[in-house]
Amino acid sequence: MPSSSRIYSAALVVIGDEILSGRTQDKNIAQVATWLQVQGIRLKEVRVVPDDTPAIVEAVNTLRARHDYLFTTGGIGPTHDDITVDAIAEALGVPVIVHPQARAILEGYYETRGGLNEARLRMARTPEGASLIPNRYTGAPGIRAGNVFIMAGVPSIAAGMLDALSGQLEGGAPLLSETVGCWVGESDVADLLRETEQAFATCQIGSYPFWAEGRGGANFVIRSVSADDLAACTRALVEGLAALDKPAIAGGI
Amino acid sequence: MPSSSRIYSAALVVIGDEILSGRTQDKNIAQVATWLQVQGIRLKEVRVVPDDTPAIVEAVNTLRARHDYLFTTGGIGPTHDDITVDAIAEALGVPVIVHPQARAILEGYYETRGGLNEARLRMARTPEGASLIPNRYTGAPGIRAGNVFIMAGVPSIAAGMLDALSGQLEGGAPLLSETVGCWVGESDVADLLRETEQAFATCQIGSYPFWAEGRGGANFVIRSVSADDLAACTRALVEGLAALDKPAIAGGI
Repeated sequence: MPSSSRIYSAALVVIGDEILSGRTQDKNIAQVATWLQVQGIRLKEVRVVPDDTPAIVEAVNTLRARHDYLFTTGGIGPTHDDITVDAIAEALGVPVIVHPQARAILEGYYETRGGLNEARLRMARTPEGASLIPNRYTGAPGIRAGNVFIMAGVPSIAAGMLDALSGQLEGGAPLLSETVGCWVGESDVADLLRETEQAFATCQIGSYPFWAEGRGGANFVIRSVSADDLAACTRALVEGLAALDKPAIAGGI
Repeated sequence: MPSSSRIYSAALVVIGDEILSGRTQDKNIAQVATWLQVQGIRLKEVRVVPDDTPAIVEAVNTLRARHDYLFTTGGIGPTHDDITVDAIAEALGVPVIVHPQARAILEGYYETRGGLNEARLRMARTPEGASLIPNRYTGAPGIRAGNVFIMAGVPSIAAGMLDALSGQLEGGAPLLSETVGCWVGESDVADLLRETEQAFATCQIGSYPFWAEGRGGANFVIRSVSADDLAACTRALVEGLAALDKPAIAGGI
């Protein structure tokens, strides 16, 4: 429900030794970031921490106080290294309970899949006072505890949980963006970028160089909460590039 | 130079609005993590922060005090949004200088590429007292300032800088790992995993479920600094899975 002009901010804590060892390429940062943009919420900070209770508690308590929303991914499965629920309950200063609704969901899900054993029942545990985030794929729900949203680490399952939350969180005006590509070295247009940004108070311009097809280019991303300013700033940048005989490519390269 | 039995730790600060907006999928976390493993250094924490001086200063000062090494990626190019060098100099309490050796490198690199303009000269700026990390691709060097290693955000360039640092940092015993895959739900073997881990004090077992080929499986990653313990723990897990009639697949699925 994007509504007010205030800026809503969020942080993400990615929990897992597998990310910090390099074994697994994280995909949740980009998908949470993209989803938050659409909700009108800015992702301001991400921390990746190991499967270690003090590290999780520190990150959660610092970031939930600092932002409107805090998301976590990882560590809510059935095995001994899944300690996220216990760590967040500790951070919140509440006990861990077996959530009756989560238990009912898991009983239904595992009815035809070998039954609800002790390990699977771990996935019904939540911090006291929490509500559930539906998981359409594997039963075991995500958890909302205050402003903390506890999600699965498997990206496809996390995506389903984000989908279930779409439109549920209060957000502000979404940050809009336009991308312009150009076969130019960014150092050749640094002045143009800086001056164009300065001419439009609500706009930021990011410059992202790359090498492709054997030559250098860059994409310039203009961001603003104002659609009018965004259009005007983008037009000014395209005209500035044209004046340097560097044609812009709408949408980026 | 892996040598002692002490554990060396590192942190990484990924700097860039493009990661937090979801526009760019980060690849530096995984590559820095993988490289550090080989150096005998553990990546213990990652933070992703925006192109914002106070956010960079806070992350750098917290993490450089807490770990043996701190790496940063991003924000060292020629444009107005490249503020990493200034922010880290502020964090270190030293002025920014034009590094004579960096200037000479850039003069050579740009001699046949249009010359060293003001924007390109920005890439010769370092915190006072810093040394350089070679960049074999685009001239502009990385920077070492105390225990802080400032690297490019473009993954291929960051990779070259890591390569230049290989074997240069003091590390401890590398964390070794073995992966065992199995077509089993992790919740069916949670007890086995926990008990096997407990039987080998130097080992940790991580459990990573997935869905593929229409059925569920999991990879189990056993980690230890002891090659003997690693082999024994892996053997115990494989035998435990076999006893449940779940054949293990060496190397993972």
